[in-house]
Amino acid sequence: MENKIVSILMGSDSDWPIMKAAAEILDHFGIKYDVEVLSAHRAPELLFKFAKEAHTKGIEVIIAGAGGAAHLPGVIAALSPLPVIGVPIKSSISLEGLDSIFSILQMPSGIPVATMALNGAKNAGIFAAQVLSVKYAEIRDKIIDYKKKLEAEVIEKSKELKKNI
Amino acid sequence: MENKIVSILMGSDSDWPIMKAAAEILDHFGIKYDVEVLSAHRAPELLFKFAKEAHTKGIEVIIAGAGGAAHLPGVIAALSPLPVIGVPIKSSISLEGLDSIFSILQMPSGIPVATMALNGAKNAGIFAAQVLSVKYAEIRDKIIDYKKKLEAEVIEKSKELKKNI
Amino acid sequence: MENKIVSILMGSDSDWPIMKAAAEILDHFGIKYDVEVLSAHRAPELLFKFAKEAHTKGIEVIIAGAGGAAHLPGVIAALSPLPVIGVPIKSSISLEGLDSIFSILQMPSGIPVATMALNGAKNAGIFAAQVLSVKYAEIRDKIIDYKKKLEAEVIEKSKELKKNI
Amino acid sequence: MENKIVSILMGSDSDWPIMKAAAEILDHFGIKYDVEVLSAHRAPELLFKFAKEAHTKGIEVIIAGAGGAAHLPGVIAALSPLPVIGVPIKSSISLEGLDSIFSILQMPSGIPVATMALNGAKNAGIFAAQVLSVKYAEIRDKIIDYKKKLEAEVIEKSKELKKNI
Amino acid sequence: MENKIVSILMGSDSDWPIMKAAAEILDHFGIKYDVEVLSAHRAPELLFKFAKEAHTKGIEVIIAGAGGAAHLPGVIAALSPLPVIGVPIKSSISLEGLDSIFSILQMPSGIPVATMALNGAKNAGIFAAQVLSVKYAEIRDKIIDYKKKLEAEVIEKSKELKKNI
Amino acid sequence: MENKIVSILMGSDSDWPIMKAAAEILDHFGIKYDVEVLSAHRAPELLFKFAKEAHTKGIEVIIAGAGGAAHLPGVIAALSPLPVIGVPIKSSISLEGLDSIFSILQMPSGIPVATMALNGAKNAGIFAAQVLSVKYAEIRDKIIDYKKKLEAEVIEKSKELKKNI
Amino acid sequence: MENKIVSILMGSDSDWPIMKAAAEILDHFGIKYDVEVLSAHRAPELLFKFAKEAHTKGIEVIIAGAGGAAHLPGVIAALSPLPVIGVPIKSSISLEGLDSIFSILQMPSGIPVATMALNGAKNAGIFAAQVLSVKYAEIRDKIIDYKKKLEAEVIEKSKELKKNI
Amino acid sequence: MENKIVSILMGSDSDWPIMKAAAEILDHFGIKYDVEVLSAHRAPELLFKFAKEAHTKGIEVIIAGAGGAAHLPGVIAALSPLPVIGVPIKSSISLEGLDSIFSILQMPSGIPVATMALNGAKNAGIFAAQVLSVKYAEIRDKIIDYKKKLEAEVIEKSKELKKNI
Repeated sequence: MENKIVSILMGSDSDWPIMKAAAEILDHFGIKYDVEVLSAHRAPELLFKFAKEAHTKGIEVIIAGAGGAAHLPGVIAALSPLPVIGVPIKSSISLEGLDSIFSILQMPSGIPVATMALNGAKNAGIFAAQVLSVKYAEIRDKIIDYKKKLEAEVIEKSKELKKNI
Repeated sequence: MENKIVSILMGSDSDWPIMKAAAEILDHFGIKYDVEVLSAHRAPELLFKFAKEAHTKGIEVIIAGAGGAAHLPGVIAALSPLPVIGVPIKSSISLEGLDSIFSILQMPSGIPVATMALNGAKNAGIFAAQVLSVKYAEIRDKIIDYKKKLEAEVIEKSKELKKNI
Repeated sequence: MENKIVSILMGSDSDWPIMKAAAEILDHFGIKYDVEVLSAHRAPELLFKFAKEAHTKGIEVIIAGAGGAAHLPGVIAALSPLPVIGVPIKSSISLEGLDSIFSILQMPSGIPVATMALNGAKNAGIFAAQVLSVKYAEIRDKIIDYKKKLEAEVIEKSKELKKNI
Repeated sequence: MENKIVSILMGSDSDWPIMKAAAEILDHFGIKYDVEVLSAHRAPELLFKFAKEAHTKGIEVIIAGAGGAAHLPGVIAALSPLPVIGVPIKSSISLEGLDSIFSILQMPSGIPVATMALNGAKNAGIFAAQVLSVKYAEIRDKIIDYKKKLEAEVIEKSKELKKNI
Repeated sequence: MENKIVSILMGSDSDWPIMKAAAEILDHFGIKYDVEVLSAHRAPELLFKFAKEAHTKGIEVIIAGAGGAAHLPGVIAALSPLPVIGVPIKSSISLEGLDSIFSILQMPSGIPVATMALNGAKNAGIFAAQVLSVKYAEIRDKIIDYKKKLEAEVIEKSKELKKNI
Repeated sequence: MENKIVSILMGSDSDWPIMKAAAEILDHFGIKYDVEVLSAHRAPELLFKFAKEAHTKGIEVIIAGAGGAAHLPGVIAALSPLPVIGVPIKSSISLEGLDSIFSILQMPSGIPVATMALNGAKNAGIFAAQVLSVKYAEIRDKIIDYKKKLEAEVIEKSKELKKNI
Repeated sequence: MENKIVSILMGSDSDWPIMKAAAEILDHFGIKYDVEVLSAHRAPELLFKFAKEAHTKGIEVIIAGAGGAAHLPGVIAALSPLPVIGVPIKSSISLEGLDSIFSILQMPSGIPVATMALNGAKNAGIFAAQVLSVKYAEIRDKIIDYKKKLEAEVIEKSKELKKNI
Repeated sequence: MENKIVSILMGSDSDWPIMKAAAEILDHFGIKYDVEVLSAHRAPELLFKFAKEAHTKGIEVIIAGAGGAAHLPGVIAALSPLPVIGVPIKSSISLEGLDSIFSILQMPSGIPVATMALNGAKNAGIFAAQVLSVKYAEIRDKIIDYKKKLEAEVIEKSKELKKNI
C-alpha cells in the first residue's frame, strides 16, 4: 500500500486541529492519505473537479469534515461513487453543533454520507480503515489488534482507579 | 418586464405543492419566472451549469427550496453572484424541519442565503419582489398596495370576529 | 458473489417495514444478504455470539437499525471488526427521532458507527454497496450507473413539472 | 453612489461588535450606509417613524440585528416596503441563539425577513450588496471579484496546509 | 364591574379557537372583556394606536396570543404600561411551538411579558383574574372558590378511577 | 405603602445573585418586599405553610425563581390564590436552561405561572410593579416614567454610537 | 405478599390509559398495588398527606406519572423517604414530551426521581419489581424468568421474519 | 452490612470526578460498594461477564454512569436482573448532554434503567440507598434523617440570606 488511498478533505484550514486525528489514526494503521482544503461554497469548481476524478486516481475512501451549514461531505458524495465519511465539526458559534450534524446526516435517498459523531475525526479514520479492511486483509488484522488494545486499556484503567480510591 | 427574471428551483418535484406559493405571489406582482427541479445531490452537474449561467441569461433573483440536508440553496449561492432566497421545506420524516432550516440558514461567511420561515415559499416570492423593487419602481408600488391590503384584511377580520362572538 | 456478504440486523421485527428498503436496494445491486432480529437489550447473548462470529462467516458489512435508546449498532460495532452502518429509526413515541440519532451517532473514540439519516435504510444499503465496491469492481460500475439514473430522473421530473405548470 | 442607501439597525449598542462586520463589508463594496440603535421594545415610536420613512429618504435595503425575543427586524419589515435582512444575535444567556433565530426567521405569510446565520452580520452586508447589484451593475462586478478572491484564498490555504503537515 | 377591563388580542382570527378559552374563564369570573384581532406585522399602525391608548380607556390587563415569530405580545408590552399576558400558539407548521414560546418569553430587560404555557389561553384568563384580584376583593374570593373546585374534581376523579379499575 | 406586599422566593441561596435584580427594581419603584429561601424539594412543609398564608399577611404578588426541575413557582401557585411570577434560572449543568423554562412554563390548566425570560429577575420585578399598578395609581405613574427613561437611553446610545463610528 | 406494596399515582385520570401498563405488569409479577389520582397543582394538600404517610402504611415503592410541567413525582419524592419512579407522559400539546422529561428528570441534589422513558409506564412497573426483588427473592426469580421470555420472543420473531421475507 | 452491595460502574476513568459523588453519599449512608471501569464499547466481554454474575456475588443495586452514546447502563440492565440506576454524564463536546440523557432514558419496553439528572451521581447514590431501604430498615432511618438535614439547611440559609441583604 504505497499509494494514497484515502482523501481527508475539510471546508477550511481552521478545521485541521480537529481533522488531523483522522490522519494520525490512518498513520497508525499504515494507510497513506492525501489532505485537501476544499469548499462547497467558496471554491465549488475545484471541489467539483476533485470529486469527479478522485476514484480514477486511486483514492478508495473519502473523509470530509465541515461545520455550520456543512455541505462539503454531501456534495462530494453527490459527485463521487466512492464511500464518503462525514465529520460534523462544532464551530465556535455553534447551535451545539446540531447545524453541522443535521446538514451532514440528513442526506436524501440515493446519496448516503456515513456520519460520525460531532468532532469524530478519529473515528472517521478508524471507519475508513474498516472499509478498506474489506479489501486489504492486513488492515483487518490491525483493526482486530486495535480493538484488543482498547480492551486492555480499559482493564488497566479499572485497576488503577481501584488502587487510587 | 416581459422576461423571466426570477428562477424558482426545488430539489424534487414533490416540493412543488409548497413552492408553487412563490409562483402564485410572483404572478400577483406581475413578475415572470422560470421553474426548475435541480438537485445538488442527484444532478450536480446540471445544477452547476445552471447556477454559473443564470445571471448571464437575465435572471435577477433565485428562489431555492429544499428539505432535509438541504444543500441546494447554498450550492447555488456558491456558484452564482445573484441574491439567493432559501426556503426550508419540512419533509415527512422531519426533525420538525430543523434539519432543513439549519442546512440553509447557517451558511459560512462569504456566501449568504436569505432564509425564509419553514415552508415559507409565499414569503420567498414577496421578498423576491422586494429585491426587484430596488430596481423596478412599479413593483415598489405594488408592494405598498399589498401591505395596505394585508392591513385592510386584519381590520375586516377583527370586525367579523367581534360580530360573531 | 454467491455468498451472503451483508447482514441486515434490526432490534425488533416491527422495524422491518423501514429496514426492508436496505434489502431492496441490495437486491438491485445484486448483493446477497442475511436478515436477523437481534436485540442488545432483550437477547444480548445471541447478539454477542452473532457479532463475534460474523466476520468469520463471510459477512463483510453489517447494517443495523434501531430506535429509541438505540444500542444495537454500537454494541455490534464494539464486538465486530467489520464496518457497521447504523440506521436510526423514528419510533411512534419519538422525541422526533433525536433519541435514535444521538444513541447511534455519538459513539466514543475507537468504535465508529457510520450513521445514516433518520429511517435512512435505503441509503444504508447504498453505502454498504459503496463499501463493497472498494473490493468488487462490478459493484463500482453499478453505483456509477445508479448515479446516472438518479440524474436522468431529475431531468425527467424537471421537464414534466414545466409541462404541468 | 454618494448617498447612504443601506441602513444598519440594531436593538442595542452592545450589538455593535457583531454588527460592524456588516459595515466593514459594505465599505469594501463601496456602499454608503447609516447606523442606528432602534428598539422595538424600548423606543417603539422612534422605530415606527424611522421605518415608515426610510424608503422615502433614499434607503434601499435595511439590515437589522437583534437577540433574544428579537422583534426588531420583523417590526421594521411590517412598517417598510424595503427588503429587510435580519441578523439573529446570540446573547450571553442564550438558549444557543435559537430564541433569536426563531423570532426573526418564522415570520408570518405576507411579511418576509431575509434571515442570515447566527451572528451573520458579514453575510448580511454581502447579501445587501447582492440585492443592490440587481440595480447597480458595478456592484455586481465587485461581487464576482469577491467570489474569485474567496476561491483564491481556499486554494492558497490548501497549499499551505499541505506544506505544513 | 360593568366595564370591560381586559383586552383579549390575537394576531389572526384563526387563533380564536385557542383564545376563546380565555374569554370563557373570564365569563366564569364575571369579568368583562374586549376582543380584537391586531397584528404587529400586518396592521402595525392600528396596533400602535390601540396599545398607546388602552390604559386610558379603562383596560387594566391585556392578554395577547400569537404564533410563529410571535411579536404581538412584546410590541404591545413595549407600548403600554399595562401588564401583558402572552399566550404562545402552536401553529400547524410548528417547530413544536418553540418559535412561539421563545418569541414571547425571551423579552429583553425592561419590557416583561407574562408568558403562559403553549396554547394556555385558559390560564391567561385565570392569571388576568389573579392580577385583577389584587384590586377587586370579590375576584379573590372567586379564585379561592375556583381552586377548591379543582381540588374537589381531583378527589372525585380519583374515586371514580378506583371504582373502574 | 409601608408594608411588604411582594415576596421574592428562591429555591436556593445560590440563586440570589440572579434574583436580587428583582429586589433592586422593586426598590426603584418604592415597593417593599420580603425575601425567602423556600424549597419544594428540600423543605416542602415550610413552603406549604408559607404559600397557604401569604395572601392573609398582606402579600399581593409572589415572585419565585428556580432552576433545573424547577417546581417552586408551580407549587406556590397551586397553594396560593395570589398571582405568581416565575423566573427560570439557568444552572451550571444546564441543558441551556430549557429544563428550568419548561418546568415553570408548561403548567396545567387551572394553575398559571407568569413565566419570565431565562434569568429574567429584573423583568419579574417590573411585572410585579405592573400588577400592583392595577391597584396603586402612583406605581402606574412610575412605570410610565420608567418606560420614558428606557426610550431616552436608546436615543442617547444611538447618538453616541454614531459619534464613535 | 397479600398487601398493597406499590402505589401508582397519576396527575389526572386521563393519564390512566398510559399508566395502566404499570398495573398490568405488576399483576404479571403478582405484586399488589394501589392507584390514586393525585395532583401537585390541583389538590396539593391531599398529595401532601398521602406522601407523608405512604411509607407508614406498608407502601414500599411509588410510581408517579405526569405530563407538561410534571411536578407530581418530584413533590412526592420531596415528601416521602420511599424510592419514587417517575413516568414522563407525552401530552397532546407536547413539545414532544421534553417538558415532561425535563420536569421529572432534572431533580436537584438530595431528592432523586428514577425517571423512565417517555410514556414508559410498563418499565416503571418492571423497575418497581426489580426494587422489590432486593427484598423478596420470589420476585427476583420472576424477573429472571421474564428476561428469558423476552429473549425467547426475539429468537422466535427473528425466525418468523426470515420465513416471511 | 459488611459486604459490598452496590456496584458503581463507569465507561471511562475520566468519569470518576463526576461518579465519586455516588461513592461519597454511599459512605455517608454506611453502604459498601465496588467501583469498576467497564465499557460496552471497548471491553464488551468483560462487561458481559460482570453483568451476568453481579447478582450472584451479593451485589443488590448497580449504578452506571456514561456519556455520549451512553450504552453502558442499558447493556448492564439487559444482562442483569438487578435494578440499574443510570447517570447521564455531560461530556466536553456535548450536545448539552442530550445525547447522554436520551441514550440512557429511552430504553425499550422490558429493560428499564432508572435515569438520574445530568451528572446526577449524588442522587444515584441516594436512590440506591432508597432501593436498599426497602430491605434494610436502618437505611430507611438514615434517609429520613438525611431529609431532615436538607430541610434544616434550607431554613438556615433562608435566615442567613435575610441577614445579609
